[in-house]
Amino acid sequence: MKEGKIEPRTLSGFMELMPGAQIQFDRIIETMRYIYGLYGYYPLDTPILESSEVLLAKAGGETEKQVYRFNKGNTDLTMRFDLTVPLAKYVAQNYSGLSFPFKRYQIGKVYRGEKAQKGRFREFYQSDIDIIGDGELNVINDAEIPSVIYNVFTHLGLRDFTIRINNRRVLSGFFNMLDLEDQAVSIMRVVDKIEKVSREELIRELEALGVATDKCQKIIEFIGIKGTNDEIIAQLKKLSTNEGGMFDEGLEQLELVIKYIEAFNVPRENYKIDLSIARGLDYYTGTVYETTFNKHPEIGSICSGGRYDNLAEFYTEKKLPGVGISIGLTRLFYILNEMEYLNASGSAPADVLIIPMTEDLSHAVGISARLRDAGVKCQIYFEKKKFKNKIGYADKLAIPFVFFLGEDEIAKNQVSFKNLQTGEQVLSPLSDAIATVRACLSKAGLETVISTEKTNR
Amino acid sequence: MKEGKIEPRTLSGFMELMPGAQIQFDRIIETMRYIYGLYGYYPLDTPILESSEVLLAKAGGETEKQVYRFNKGNTDLTMRFDLTVPLAKYVAQNYSGLSFPFKRYQIGKVYRGEKAQKGRFREFYQSDIDIIGDGELNVINDAEIPSVIYNVFTHLGLRDFTIRINNRRVLSGFFNMLDLEDQAVSIMRVVDKIEKVSREELIRELEALGVATDKCQKIIEFIGIKGTNDEIIAQLKKLSTNEGGMFDEGLEQLELVIKYIEAFNVPRENYKIDLSIARGLDYYTGTVYETTFNKHPEIGSICSGGRYDNLAEFYTEKKLPGVGISIGLTRLFYILNEMEYLNASGSAPADVLIIPMTEDLSHAVGISARLRDAGVKCQIYFEKKKFKNKIGYADKLAIPFVFFLGEDEIAKNQVSFKNLQTGEQVLSPLSDAIATVRACLSKAGLETVISTEKTNR
Repeated sequence: MKEGKIEPRTLSGFMELMPGAQIQFDRIIETMRYIYGLYGYYPLDTPILESSEVLLAKAGGETEKQVYRFNKGNTDLTMRFDLTVPLAKYVAQNYSGLSFPFKRYQIGKVYRGEKAQKGRFREFYQSDIDIIGDGELNVINDAEIPSVIYNVFTHLGLRDFTIRINNRRVLSGFFNMLDLEDQAVSIMRVVDKIEKVSREELIRELEALGVATDKCQKIIEFIGIKGTNDEIIAQLKKLSTNEGGMFDEGLEQLELVIKYIEAFNVPRENYKIDLSIARGLDYYTGTVYETTFNKHPEIGSICSGGRYDNLAEFYTEKKLPGVGISIGLTRLFYILNEMEYLNASGSAPADVLIIPMTEDLSHAVGISARLRDAGVKCQIYFEKKKFKNKIGYADKLAIPFVFFLGEDEIAKNQVSFKNLQTGEQVLSPLSDAIATVRACLSKAGLETVISTEKTNR
Repeated sequence: MKEGKIEPRTLSGFMELMPGAQIQFDRIIETMRYIYGLYGYYPLDTPILESSEVLLAKAGGETEKQVYRFNKGNTDLTMRFDLTVPLAKYVAQNYSGLSFPFKRYQIGKVYRGEKAQKGRFREFYQSDIDIIGDGELNVINDAEIPSVIYNVFTHLGLRDFTIRINNRRVLSGFFNMLDLEDQAVSIMRVVDKIEKVSREELIRELEALGVATDKCQKIIEFIGIKGTNDEIIAQLKKLSTNEGGMFDEGLEQLELVIKYIEAFNVPRENYKIDLSIARGLDYYTGTVYETTFNKHPEIGSICSGGRYDNLAEFYTEKKLPGVGISIGLTRLFYILNEMEYLNASGSAPADVLIIPMTEDLSHAVGISARLRDAGVKCQIYFEKKKFKNKIGYADKLAIPFVFFLGEDEIAKNQVSFKNLQTGEQVLSPLSDAIATVRACLSKAGLETVISTEKTNR
């Protein structure tokens, strides 16, 4: 570092992308916004700072330790650590002004002062959707959520993923049948780790909760039930006592959700019942979701959520049941990048670079206006540099086309039009050059952010 | 408040919009992103939290007092208070990986703990564009900035605005000619208030700086030079000593910038030279901009910026000149809303509400998928409510079309298609209904966020 200068640096655990990568990141956000919009979800944007009393109303333990909390004057402030608590606050606060079911998405940064490590971030984007009911909410909404997620991922270019679905009532009901009501929540936390620990470890942990060995076996058999969705439901029906208890309720919901996911045209290979999905949080009361890359189960869930009975119980007496899901966007981007799943194309800030070869630049400026009117992104290289610097600039930015404008071109109202990918250069009327660029771009526009070929290799 | 509940509230000075208004706000951001993109600017997204040492490298006085600064563990952190300092950090930090000129936009929240008052926010969006050169940057870039701003505002639906342009070298050069070099920066701060204070007050303030009465008169005459851009430039040329000093340099730049703004096709009524624009900050060294609503000068500038010599002098020895402008987006939105300039249309989250009239909802779900495939935003009303609640939901959300699906419609593969604006209802094949909706939407899509009629009344 030079003397007297401050070293420019970014905090550890804070993702700051290079410009080309930022374009890819933004394209992912745009795709999400587009799909959420097609399903009629409202966008929301709540403050990043809230009163600590409001934000930490129900927090405790780990959350309290991780949050960025401080005083400004006499005000005790906390930076939001998720998008669910702000949603709860918003709905309780604006209850009378909202219409229910209230469907919203929010894509925003949240803050957790976790131990910084590779692939873990302290500032990260979450991309959440939720549907909130007033008093009640039809279980069919639980089938819409996987349909939205399916569309988000496929529009991004992902194919090889599975949305895994379970119902906490099925699990709780089953534990009840084993007379394990009191341990149900703790058992679910253990069950939730099934992908991460060995069968022996799982049994040890269950036994530590006071579960008898034969019941451990039954639990492990139960959560291991395999087959098609129809086969799993048939198996579960055999376990039913038909007394309409919690297990039967959960089973009925699960069956309905599976039926309607199909009505939403989600292909069967992209969703399946997985009885081992429990989600650690007590918060969830019905349907639960996780989403995994088929070839990379080690990554764990990239998109999780579920049904809850009471969104805002800390703020209001109103019963506000809901269902939602959250994508950890910053982590997802980090993973996609590490796996080299992202398409390199589409990281250019412009489609065309205009390189003027004359002293007066008015003509070049006029042509840039024509290009923009035609919806073509373009830059003009205004600087007085050597030719190789100008063309090198286009190369470095991966700008696909260059228009050269010399005296000749201006006199004839033409452009020397170079395709940097093929190296081909032709002299052509401006309108032809614009048409060619537009045709190439509309083809390129069909490319997804994530390379489908790569994810399927 | 109910006992045991925490009152859900949002901090004072933090804007949190209702869902319909949020859609309008997001449309403004989308328009900005679209236009910035057409000019080939990279998007950037820097962290909201930075090390205090980095963020406050050049801060002092008011800034230091206003910032949200705190410790987490041993780290001294500050929330960003503008988007310029993070840009300076970014460019210095990533210098070797960037290509210059580096054009970037950033639309993001910044934080200033100012005294909360109507129309003033502590968390607010800035929307910034900057072009950074490596060592030098052609002055023609200074003409591109007003062109971008003109396109942003007109695409939003604003017409009645003026981008006011000046050059600090013209001002400084003039003060030098009056032998007022030493007071130049202080005089500019005073001159900058011309719109807000009386002529007498201005003279008093100049005299307080030790400026003699006859020089005060000359300054006031100078900054009051009126006329077309050509006329003002002609007047300025008369003042030139033709010795190539600072005044002449500034005048040459100003003339070039005005010439190229015209080449960018910005209509003459939307920009003009205003010699009273000084911008308070010492930071600016050449071209300066302010933008005002013609009929509401009392609002002051809604978009300001200028040319600077050294973006990142606190972080690097590299000379990084640049030019940029910033829109205070949250304040702008607040003003547009207060003035009722925003189009009420376009605040609906969906184009179509599907209301199923049967027990089984599979058919409705299938039709929603068809609509979305056609790019139509739609919701299905899944809840078991009375008919008037269902139609009331569409009304409240301002959803323009409703599809009713009863047994009859399903059997005939038709929909009862209601236009809620006209009240008209027809039974029609699904494909016809979709075509009608798309035709109406493409017409509605031409409506700008801001009502042009209203701003011109």
